Amino acid sequence: MGTPEIIWSCIALVISIASFVVAAYFYKWVKQLPVANARLEEVGKLIRDGAFTFLKREYRILGLFAAVVMVLIILFFPEPIWHGNPGKNITMAIVYLFGTSLSALAGYVGISIATLSNVRAATAAQESIQKSFMAGFRGGAVMGMAVVGTSLAGAALVYLVTQDPEIVMAFSFGASSLALFAKAGGGIFTKTADIAADLTGKVELGIPEDDPRNPAVIADNVGDNVGDVAGMGADLFDSNVAAMAATIVIAAAIGQVAFMFAITSMGLLASIAGVFLSRLGPKGSPSRALNGGTYITCGIFAVLTLIAVLISGFNILLWVCAMLGMVAGVIIGITSDFFTGDDKKPVAKVAESCQNGPAFTILNGFSYGLLSCLPALIGIGLTALISYKLGEAIGPGYAMMGISTAAIGMLSIIGMIISNDAYGPIVDNARGVAEMAGLGDEVLEITDELDAAGNTAKAITKGFSIGAAGLTVISLLGAFLELVEGAGATVVFDVMNPMVFFGILVGAAIPAVFSAMLMNGVNRNSQVMVKEIHRQFNSIPGLREGTSQPDYAKCIDISTRGAIRELIPAGLFTILMTLVVGFIGGPEAIGGFLVGNIVTGLLLALLMSNAGGLWDNAKKFVESGNFGGKGSDAHKAAVIGDTVGDPFKDTAGPSINTQITVVSLVSSLAATLFVRFHLF
Amino acid sequence: MGTPEIIWSCIALVISIASFVVAAYFYKWVKQLPVANARLEEVGKLIRDGAFTFLKREYRILGLFAAVVMVLIILFFPEPIWHGNPGKNITMAIVYLFGTSLSALAGYVGISIATLSNVRAATAAQESIQKSFMAGFRGGAVMGMAVVGTSLAGAALVYLVTQDPEIVMAFSFGASSLALFAKAGGGIFTKTADIAADLTGKVELGIPEDDPRNPAVIADNVGDNVGDVAGMGADLFDSNVAAMAATIVIAAAIGQVAFMFAITSMGLLASIAGVFLSRLGPKGSPSRALNGGTYITCGIFAVLTLIAVLISGFNILLWVCAMLGMVAGVIIGITSDFFTGDDKKPVAKVAESCQNGPAFTILNGFSYGLLSCLPALIGIGLTALISYKLGEAIGPGYAMMGISTAAIGMLSIIGMIISNDAYGPIVDNARGVAEMAGLGDEVLEITDELDAAGNTAKAITKGFSIGAAGLTVISLLGAFLELVEGAGATVVFDVMNPMVFFGILVGAAIPAVFSAMLMNGVNRNSQVMVKEIHRQFNSIPGLREGTSQPDYAKCIDISTRGAIRELIPAGLFTILMTLVVGFIGGPEAIGGFLVGNIVTGLLLALLMSNAGGLWDNAKKFVESGNFGGKGSDAHKAAVIGDTVGDPFKDTAGPSINTQITVVSLVSSLAATLFVRFHLF
Repeated sequence: MGTPEIIWSCIALVISIASFVVAAYFYKWVKQLPVANARLEEVGKLIRDGAFTFLKREYRILGLFAAVVMVLIILFFPEPIWHGNPGKNITMAIVYLFGTSLSALAGYVGISIATLSNVRAATAAQESIQKSFMAGFRGGAVMGMAVVGTSLAGAALVYLVTQDPEIVMAFSFGASSLALFAKAGGGIFTKTADIAADLTGKVELGIPEDDPRNPAVIADNVGDNVGDVAGMGADLFDSNVAAMAATIVIAAAIGQVAFMFAITSMGLLASIAGVFLSRLGPKGSPSRALNGGTYITCGIFAVLTLIAVLISGFNILLWVCAMLGMVAGVIIGITSDFFTGDDKKPVAKVAESCQNGPAFTILNGFSYGLLSCLPALIGIGLTALISYKLGEAIGPGYAMMGISTAAIGMLSIIGMIISNDAYGPIVDNARGVAEMAGLGDEVLEITDELDAAGNTAKAITKGFSIGAAGLTVISLLGAFLELVEGAGATVVFDVMNPMVFFGILVGAAIPAVFSAMLMNGVNRNSQVMVKEIHRQFNSIPGLREGTSQPDYAKCIDISTRGAIRELIPAGLFTILMTLVVGFIGGPEAIGGFLVGNIVTGLLLALLMSNAGGLWDNAKKFVESGNFGGKGSDAHKAAVIGDTVGDPFKDTAGPSINTQITVVSLVSSLAATLFVRFHLF
Repeated sequence: MGTPEIIWSCIALVISIASFVVAAYFYKWVKQLPVANARLEEVGKLIRDGAFTFLKREYRILGLFAAVVMVLIILFFPEPIWHGNPGKNITMAIVYLFGTSLSALAGYVGISIATLSNVRAATAAQESIQKSFMAGFRGGAVMGMAVVGTSLAGAALVYLVTQDPEIVMAFSFGASSLALFAKAGGGIFTKTADIAADLTGKVELGIPEDDPRNPAVIADNVGDNVGDVAGMGADLFDSNVAAMAATIVIAAAIGQVAFMFAITSMGLLASIAGVFLSRLGPKGSPSRALNGGTYITCGIFAVLTLIAVLISGFNILLWVCAMLGMVAGVIIGITSDFFTGDDKKPVAKVAESCQNGPAFTILNGFSYGLLSCLPALIGIGLTALISYKLGEAIGPGYAMMGISTAAIGMLSIIGMIISNDAYGPIVDNARGVAEMAGLGDEVLEITDELDAAGNTAKAITKGFSIGAAGLTVISLLGAFLELVEGAGATVVFDVMNPMVFFGILVGAAIPAVFSAMLMNGVNRNSQVMVKEIHRQFNSIPGLREGTSQPDYAKCIDISTRGAIRELIPAGLFTILMTLVVGFIGGPEAIGGFLVGNIVTGLLLALLMSNAGGLWDNAKKFVESGNFGGKGSDAHKAAVIGDTVGDPFKDTAGPSINTQITVVSLVSSLAATLFVRFHLF
């Protein structure tokens, strides 16, 4: 290990610690904010308790899963323990556990702060939109700092201690496997409650969103936390770690690990600066504040990394790759904003088509979702192509480094991205608790405005996360090839090789089946919950009139049980299919399998996220008084579109990112095994 | 050209002529059947005139398009005329025109016979279900015999005269480019009318399907003919020619063209026998009669080809590849039947979920559609893999021949497949004209039963057509590589080559954008037609009561204009994107582009066809009295699902097959150009 590597790993550790200090500072800052009244306190506690109850039950299952995987790793990975080096197997297992634990911790911290911030942001809205914005944003920033700090510190520590890139892969697999289940479980929980609450409340009974008479309303707010906050935290933790792990594997071969840590630590530093600088001016719009913060962070990142490159003497072309990744992230975000933004043509067109009934709402939104894939896929493809060519210009072995540097560059400002992303569900929740605690219409107006800004910012952050996932899995493919060659095999992933093509076709089906399983889970559970809500309205006297309380806990329990039951099969299916294809067709089939997975995974993720976001905003567009407004037939059609879009954008769509990462990591971990043992 | 090649090409010509004789015999047989009454005659004439009007206007536009392409071919393909051999350019242009003309002819013949058969099948239903079945089936068989006969005769003629595989590609491109637009135009026409008629008639006014008061009802029936009959005919004509063209390119290099003609002509002979043997026994079910005919044809094909192989001394392993393709087609058909059959679990589940509203109908059907991709993709992948390995065992150069033989094998019994497929819209139309001419409930019951059998048989025939398209485009990829190497370049489609990967990502977006454009076309047009129907009901006195006639012609005109306007852009987009990617990235980018196209093309085609079929049958399941039956809330939800599914299964889904074929053929034609001129 060279001196620059040690220096930059240590710098990464120091900046991570700084981010923890910032997170702790913001945590305290949010916690000392006042809570309006006892009712608000009570509602907040219900949500908090529900979220932690789910988290505990989820983590218990995932703990069992992790224990089983640890045993398997000790026995078989990277080589059967009776063949290879038992020490390595054991280290891998420990590091795997470390990855899962940190990922779980990221989710835990997120829930802690989000369930504090929601009620405080609602309270602050009584004073001013600026104060409420700060409560929501700094709550999100705790999450952002904690997630990025732990992922960077974790990767630096594992690399410093073991100095073995393959073991960093195990760390990444730990993070990703937990993220996969957390995202799936949280996504099923949140949409079960959301759909059931909307269908019974808004559609059947005509009561407003977040009305306290609705038995599913607390479960819905719990869902925002376990799905959007904890799930998303685990997901971005995993993307970030996976990008670093792939880069370390590739960079280690050419002695460029120091550069990787330089870029990622400067990114975190830039994000720290960004979150401090983000604030809502007296006349500013919250969505401009969020996006403005992102752009400022990008600027700081560019300057800091340029300085680091010049001081440390890194290759300037690699720096260009990082910049390219960052810019591509912004551009992909802007195009997805075009398809989902409520001031753009697609949303207005879909809202207009709602007048002709729900079938047109669905067809139109789905078509725009399909169209939205083109710019993003071209963007990812071009970024990969150019960064590869830039890397190639540096020298042999640098080509894949170019791609993974672009991925790292795109994820560099992830601290800021997560802060923006976590802000969304916090202010959404603030709106919910404000309604339930009866804080009045002015507060609702402010929280509505803050919530809308969260939705807009989400388009850009989603662009970053899908783009980064695309580049990351391409570099993971490179890392897989590296490991296969390390295991003594020479392979070419030539598509004219029928084994590769077979892998491509089977791999292409995996994201489709995975998303279908998750959506069916949401389907099944929300039908159960709809029945329960009907039961409560029919059997609890005075509930309809608001003179008695519904049984919130029962609905939370249905969401929890359902999510716990459904979260394992889909993830397990993808992992098992990877192993089956690998042990049948060997590394060539897996190379194809990963390509097929990446291609349809990106397509479906883009389609589902963007169509879902589009339907959501078309509904809001109608609700704000267009084409007949609330209660009109157009509105009913728009609500149906939104309901279809819910599991698209919040359950299946964002989980696919993690799914393709997990499949790539499993392949890398089993690379040696696939080389040694395969049927054909 | 060796003697066996000449012999088998001539046998192919002779059997093609035999199929024309059979087609003419069936045509006369159908034509001499009686027509019940003057009203039926009149309705039949309205449909016939509408269909031919559309066809003429469509062919005029496509004639212009073909003329432009001819000029381009003369100037640039396969090489700029000032570089290469002008004679070859001119031959290619002529052969291209020949391909488009035969494809257009196939559509024309289909419409002629279908618009004769519909009224005669309706009349025959007054006598017995057996007679009505025969009228519908033999009408379909005219189409089947004519399409397969012309495609085989065309390919044999072009090959005999020019003896140049590259020129056969131009013939195939002629067939496919016309099919692409015919399929898109017909698909937009039919769904525009169908959706508008359903939404206004069934949903708003509560009048039955095919009620003569509905102004769109004739347009809807015209649509069945121009979309399902003419479009489908052109489509399968194109698949068949493309599979033969790809095989000829690959087989010419190893002297196996004779084998290709042996397989295809024995397939046509088996189909001729099959259509004569297919009949409905006094106690048989029509769907068993259709599927039974398919299985019998498969058996005859196996025996005939085995004899041909033994007599001519072809390699027995190639015969095994053909059998493998045929069996895989049946298996893929059976799996797609599982997802869409009205006696299977998915249909019942989706129908059940209709009780919870349209959002669940959509989510559930969409999820099953996603799941349905897995078995078909594995089936195509395995078939390609095994047939490649079998080919490889024969000797060098035979590996890709294995795959293309499997494609040829899967398409071998296409004469029978088309007969079954064209039967569907004919009896569907028979039902429509029977309702409009008031032939009574007993006739409607019989035609309903025949129609349902058509839907079930469609699942299997769709399995064949998607599976065959998959294998065909894989062999077209092989043919492209062959042509690139023929142009003096050495390329490997290695996915780790960023140019290949870039191509994959861009190619993956094309089928998505293509289907979105078609669906948006349907959307736009049917909204216009809904307005026109409202206008007629509001302004024509006595229309609602049935005392005056609607203006059918106006609706036919809207469908026609809309389809003509929308049919060019989507197809042109895919052709232009292929050229852009090729001239930017060269043959390697195109190799990737084709792979991306194939992968997402197959995925979307399977998803859309199967989800669409599933929603259609779920609606029928509800209508037959389940979960509240007609008029219930569940029924309304089911109708919305069906409306979403209509453009999925009849516009976008089946056009994707043709789209990926066209892209592959354009690539092959431009292969030399891409090798010579590309930016990077």
